[in-house]
Amino acid sequence: MPELRRDPVIGRWVIIATERAKRPDQFGTAAVEKEELVSGEKCPFCEGNESMTPPEIYAIRRPGTTPNSSGWDIRVVPSISPLLHISDSLDRHGHGMYDLMNARGAHEIVVESPRHLREWELSKEQSIKNVNVILDRMIDLERDPDIKYVLVFKNYGIAAGGGHIKHARTQLIGTPVNLKRVKEELAGAKTYYDYKERCVYCDIIKQEITAAKRVVAENNNFIAISPFASRFPFETWILPKEHACDFYKIDRNKIRDFTEIADAVFAGTRKVIGDFPYNFILHTAPFRRDANKRGYWETIDRDYHWHFEILPILTRVAGFEWGSGFYINPLPPEDACKSVREAK
Amino acid sequence: MPELRRDPVIGRWVIIATERAKRPDQFGTAAVEKEELVSGEKCPFCEGNESMTPPEIYAIRRPGTTPNSSGWDIRVVPSISPLLHISDSLDRHGHGMYDLMNARGAHEIVVESPRHLREWELSKEQSIKNVNVILDRMIDLERDPDIKYVLVFKNYGIAAGGGHIKHARTQLIGTPVNLKRVKEELAGAKTYYDYKERCVYCDIIKQEITAAKRVVAENNNFIAISPFASRFPFETWILPKEHACDFYKIDRNKIRDFTEIADAVFAGTRKVIGDFPYNFILHTAPFRRDANKRGYWETIDRDYHWHFEILPILTRVAGFEWGSGFYINPLPPEDACKSVREAK
Repeated sequence: MPELRRDPVIGRWVIIATERAKRPDQFGTAAVEKEELVSGEKCPFCEGNESMTPPEIYAIRRPGTTPNSSGWDIRVVPSISPLLHISDSLDRHGHGMYDLMNARGAHEIVVESPRHLREWELSKEQSIKNVNVILDRMIDLERDPDIKYVLVFKNYGIAAGGGHIKHARTQLIGTPVNLKRVKEELAGAKTYYDYKERCVYCDIIKQEITAAKRVVAENNNFIAISPFASRFPFETWILPKEHACDFYKIDRNKIRDFTEIADAVFAGTRKVIGDFPYNFILHTAPFRRDANKRGYWETIDRDYHWHFEILPILTRVAGFEWGSGFYINPLPPEDACKSVREAK
Repeated sequence: MPELRRDPVIGRWVIIATERAKRPDQFGTAAVEKEELVSGEKCPFCEGNESMTPPEIYAIRRPGTTPNSSGWDIRVVPSISPLLHISDSLDRHGHGMYDLMNARGAHEIVVESPRHLREWELSKEQSIKNVNVILDRMIDLERDPDIKYVLVFKNYGIAAGGGHIKHARTQLIGTPVNLKRVKEELAGAKTYYDYKERCVYCDIIKQEITAAKRVVAENNNFIAISPFASRFPFETWILPKEHACDFYKIDRNKIRDFTEIADAVFAGTRKVIGDFPYNFILHTAPFRRDANKRGYWETIDRDYHWHFEILPILTRVAGFEWGSGFYINPLPPEDACKSVREAK
């Protein structure tokens, strides 16, 4: 059975994903990874192949069609090899000095088109529908009291862990604990708020608009920046210009603006470096913060600010990064920003 | 000029390594990476090629030989593309709400053999000499008041950022700030110590000896374990059995035992999965902790415990890990440990 284990020193959780297990000696045989579907291989996310996934959780379907058959625009299914499971009841316990729990949670795949298209081949209207479905799923998962956080992310390309099936999709992982990285952001943002009585992300937006060196794109509701301390070449954050801590409570009229700025960032970056592997991650406030005011991530709605992080995977993380928690970035974010802005 | 920039939310430092810079559009042309030296290419670390590196900092030389020529057993040189520089004076300053500093520090390469050998081809006596040289360099760097920490690490193999020149070497990076990851360990170990009045690493050692499921190897002075919450398949930690917080103050009579247990772990793992890419990292207490008792990493010698982490790079880190700070490990550490122990 898969389980979550907690590092006893720094509190980092690890999912021991036994459903993805291989025999120990199989880790050495580094198979050449396929870049695309091979001839005759079927994509489990394409219309007509619904039987290749677990039964759907949710779908936008044409009238008269039945679940798990053709006739859908967007389809949400459990992951084929889920990291966390919705069915179990949460069992958190100790083992000597160690802490662990069963793999309670959720792992869903939002299939963003019935056709075998990549993210950047979707129409604007389809992209808007996809964001709406992600919001619907977050709102539904928020009702599960054991789920504290939903991480929304994309892995695109082999180097970014996206595998060889390039069919547009987003993953949602609902976790029974708050995430280390998000807790760090909440704690840092709270420290800043306590000192300044302002949101650190709102201040970043103001300084970036003034400096005008790291703004990749901007529209009425959103701004895209190359962060001052970018970890990766072409790292970009997209933030709502108006303060907001919960992505899932977004005014749905703003989704069009969001998809437009995301498209502009991806299209501009692709013009500079071509098709590139990336991870795309949402950081938003945890569910039920008011009801969960304990621990150091206790905070109020004024201090945190949701944002998406686009992390192109063009360089390798090595011993220095693993050992330090610091990063080495060979491309100044000002140069990355300028090249993308000029390419658009 | 390279500089260190601090993320304003979570305090993570990034080195903007302009000396490794390429033009923005060059990041897209993913050249096929060479696995080995190609015919006619010279290794800068081999005896006879001393002019290919910056002038040496330190060497173990045969009597009568002159610096930067042949005749050495171990040679320490500045990195060819250093991330941090010893020559500048530290300049830490603000830029609006952001914090940055110049790239003051040290970046040294310990070349562990005059011959073009890999780590596992070195003799036991050569390995012992290498550890002694690393200790000598740490003791020398400790005298620099601007260097707060020295991270000792190896990158081996392409996937681990080790490049294609497989000549045994260790890197030392001396940083003007304490490392995020080490601060997390110090803080976690202090919390445990405050509660239990025992070192968390000493308790891990005791529990692992009792459980006898994750002990990869053991000798008089050291133990190697597959950590309970291993991030990576075949992750292994080597710890001194007797409590000690500063690696550079080690009793040099114990070095033989240390090299023997490290060799046993690497040889056993290689028997299971063949030659494998890895990062090898030392975590020890920062320099001058007594004189620097401020901030949350303030601690005492009883609560921290130096250790080496061996991180085989056999899986990919993707959006979930980047977004959460958690890890997915498809191999239970008990299975990894059993396979290595039986292979030895």
